[in-house]
Amino acid sequence: MSYFDAASAAPLHPVARQALLASLDDGWADPARLYREGRKARMLLDAAREAAAEAVGCRADELVFTPSGTRAVHTGVAGALAGRRRVGRHLIVSAVEHSSVLHSAEVFEAAGGEVTQVPVDRTGAVAPSGYEGALRADTALAVLQSANHEVGTVQPVAEVAQVCRAAGVPLLVDAAQSLGWGPVEGDWSLLAASAHKWGGPSGVGLLVVRKGVRFAPQGPADERESGRAPGFENIPAVVAAVASLRAVRAEAAQEALRLRELTERIRTRVPRLVPDVEVVGDPRRRLPGVVTFSCLYVDGETLLHELDREGFAVSSGSSCTSSTLTPSHVLKAMGVLSEGNVRVSLPPGTAGEDVERFLDVLPGVVAGVREKLGAPASAAVAEEDVTVVDALGRRCPIPVIELAKAFPGVPVGGTVRVLSDDEAARLDIPAWCEMRGQEYLGEEPADGGTAYLVRRLG
Amino acid sequence: MSYFDAASAAPLHPVARQALLASLDDGWADPARLYREGRKARMLLDAAREAAAEAVGCRADELVFTPSGTRAVHTGVAGALAGRRRVGRHLIVSAVEHSSVLHSAEVFEAAGGEVTQVPVDRTGAVAPSGYEGALRADTALAVLQSANHEVGTVQPVAEVAQVCRAAGVPLLVDAAQSLGWGPVEGDWSLLAASAHKWGGPSGVGLLVVRKGVRFAPQGPADERESGRAPGFENIPAVVAAVASLRAVRAEAAQEALRLRELTERIRTRVPRLVPDVEVVGDPRRRLPGVVTFSCLYVDGETLLHELDREGFAVSSGSSCTSSTLTPSHVLKAMGVLSEGNVRVSLPPGTAGEDVERFLDVLPGVVAGVREKLGAPASAAVAEEDVTVVDALGRRCPIPVIELAKAFPGVPVGGTVRVLSDDEAARLDIPAWCEMRGQEYLGEEPADGGTAYLVRRLG
Repeated sequence: MSYFDAASAAPLHPVARQALLASLDDGWADPARLYREGRKARMLLDAAREAAAEAVGCRADELVFTPSGTRAVHTGVAGALAGRRRVGRHLIVSAVEHSSVLHSAEVFEAAGGEVTQVPVDRTGAVAPSGYEGALRADTALAVLQSANHEVGTVQPVAEVAQVCRAAGVPLLVDAAQSLGWGPVEGDWSLLAASAHKWGGPSGVGLLVVRKGVRFAPQGPADERESGRAPGFENIPAVVAAVASLRAVRAEAAQEALRLRELTERIRTRVPRLVPDVEVVGDPRRRLPGVVTFSCLYVDGETLLHELDREGFAVSSGSSCTSSTLTPSHVLKAMGVLSEGNVRVSLPPGTAGEDVERFLDVLPGVVAGVREKLGAPASAAVAEEDVTVVDALGRRCPIPVIELAKAFPGVPVGGTVRVLSDDEAARLDIPAWCEMRGQEYLGEEPADGGTAYLVRRLG
Repeated sequence: MSYFDAASAAPLHPVARQALLASLDDGWADPARLYREGRKARMLLDAAREAAAEAVGCRADELVFTPSGTRAVHTGVAGALAGRRRVGRHLIVSAVEHSSVLHSAEVFEAAGGEVTQVPVDRTGAVAPSGYEGALRADTALAVLQSANHEVGTVQPVAEVAQVCRAAGVPLLVDAAQSLGWGPVEGDWSLLAASAHKWGGPSGVGLLVVRKGVRFAPQGPADERESGRAPGFENIPAVVAAVASLRAVRAEAAQEALRLRELTERIRTRVPRLVPDVEVVGDPRRRLPGVVTFSCLYVDGETLLHELDREGFAVSSGSSCTSSTLTPSHVLKAMGVLSEGNVRVSLPPGTAGEDVERFLDVLPGVVAGVREKLGAPASAAVAEEDVTVVDALGRRCPIPVIELAKAFPGVPVGGTVRVLSDDEAARLDIPAWCEMRGQEYLGEEPADGGTAYLVRRLG
């Protein structure tokens, strides 16, 4: 099995495993207690905090351990917003943040706050000017990821931090995807991260709040972790998480070069091997191990199943994966194709031959899925007079497939009206038009769904 | 080292350690993913949930895993209160709940809710009639621990649940101290517990919400754990926690008898071995492994240090322990002595000889602390005319020691006025009067503190 989903969770690093085992014996007691076992636990926790702070580039007393990266984000966003309540009730996030950030923003909005989403370009990157333009006198907090979790695009954090600093607004960086590769540059104010992304165990996140940043923890009081992370400290897991962070950092420079070469192979060869593929994300400013592409006329869930049968674990931001029926908000914000989406995220140590095998297998798998769905061959084009494509009640990627099948029959200059009640069509029909060089005219309400209008240009 | 603080955290059970190791290999991936590693993780999580539900006595889909017992309580209380917001904004708790419950109540009160604290008797037990009397038409939730964490007193949960059920009010049971010993009896609605109390690893709590109970999770949305516990699931720790629960349950009946005999030895012999000791908590309806006593004229922190030097890890609800300067709210609610407080909580497997050694060592340790503090010999009594004891600026247990030293000089029927600015005196001077059969007349404001008035009866 080739596990290519490190951006979801990395397998436990051998060093983390060793550290976990060792600290199960010394780290189980309550570190707040005065007796020997408590003091041992406290020493382990203090040492882990020092080491984590060094890796992050902050003071030990600025860093607390949380039960997950998600909780670090929830706590960080809520605490920073509450700490600056007097300044105002305005929050800035990018449109491609992790769901933990966007859900925090929703809660804030429901409680009367105002949220500005900074858009991204087609590579998934924000512009510092986007944040600059969004800053207001009543902005309490800005949030930006260090790198995108779905497409790997690295964000201009240092520049955005500078813009925020100039306005006196704290910037919270969600460093979940990048902290294993190196510290986050720039003058940020808060930082959140998640250990299982860098080969640490589950159950450990970290939250850094720089000295001088106003912060008011929300929820019931608790004396542990400076009052910022309630509940008994998970010391063996914390020790393992930090040991793993140090271990991956020691190999980071070398491993980044190696993985970058492997993902570059995928970036360049997939579009040659598979017709009608769009590789998304920034080709240069990106995480070393992540590459994402979307395959037209393919349903993401089936594609994942077929790749799993071939021994590859990847993930998908497609609208067609089981956990959700709405397309990835990241791909949507980028304005790129969401159907048949595949994210390959290589864990450190991935062998070159595994990537080669993936490239060998992929074309056949995609072709097989397309054949099952009755997708049009990518070259065949004919002419006939069709105007309405009724795809009501059909799920992604069928509406686009039906559009493509009908298209050859449309005269140049003619219009196709695709009827669909599937939410993904709203994203994928315009994306298809862009890929095919056809004109997307817009949508209008229709009986039982929406009509999407496309003009044939050639 | 004899570790007698299992009520804080139990050492990792060997079965938990094995299960943790085994599931580190199969349980690290994202259980929401469709590929093989994700499915393996999902199967482990599902199996753990089934087993935990069986041990609790609930349906698997009623149980979620949280990052700690504290988080289970926070989530459970907030979700249940929000779920019944339309019914009203009244919460009932006992006066001796864990701080996670009381802090949840504080947050609720700060947001405009109303909280009734049900008092306890001198053993630390609530009366079902206390809950019955507190229930109102606008009561949204009642909370009661299954057993008290500081004195081991078992609460009448089934009776209180019945009273609440009759009023249509859900009861949340904090089962942290008892779940390892057996399921919680009665018709409760919600339940919270913590794995490291039964020999599971840190980082795992559980929250049960019975079908039909209105529940609205608070905070940012997250699809994991039925939307009730945000963040990546900690599957290896969950598997280990449940394996340990099953293991301790298998030995529970036998081990309960054994530990009950050991704690009974402490209950009966400590008052004979050490003068001026009050053993607190219910002598019969109590946890098998917990026994708590308070030593007059002793400072809890010094006592803990001395016991640690002798190789005993115990904890204290004294006002004099380092983490807090206010006396334990539990001892305060019970109206018992708080100074020189020691909680012995034996982990399963504690050897009888360790308890014997504790009983050998304790009298000398207490006498040594008392000598250092200049406490009066417990028998010596004389007669002289003294009325004011100035203990301003002196910390617990000095004010009581000064009172006791002055007392022999007070004529029968005469009054002592103890001046003190230490918060613990408010609790400990009345407790001293009760232990000594003297009359406590009350307190009044005085220059620089408070005057506590005691009449000598004999």
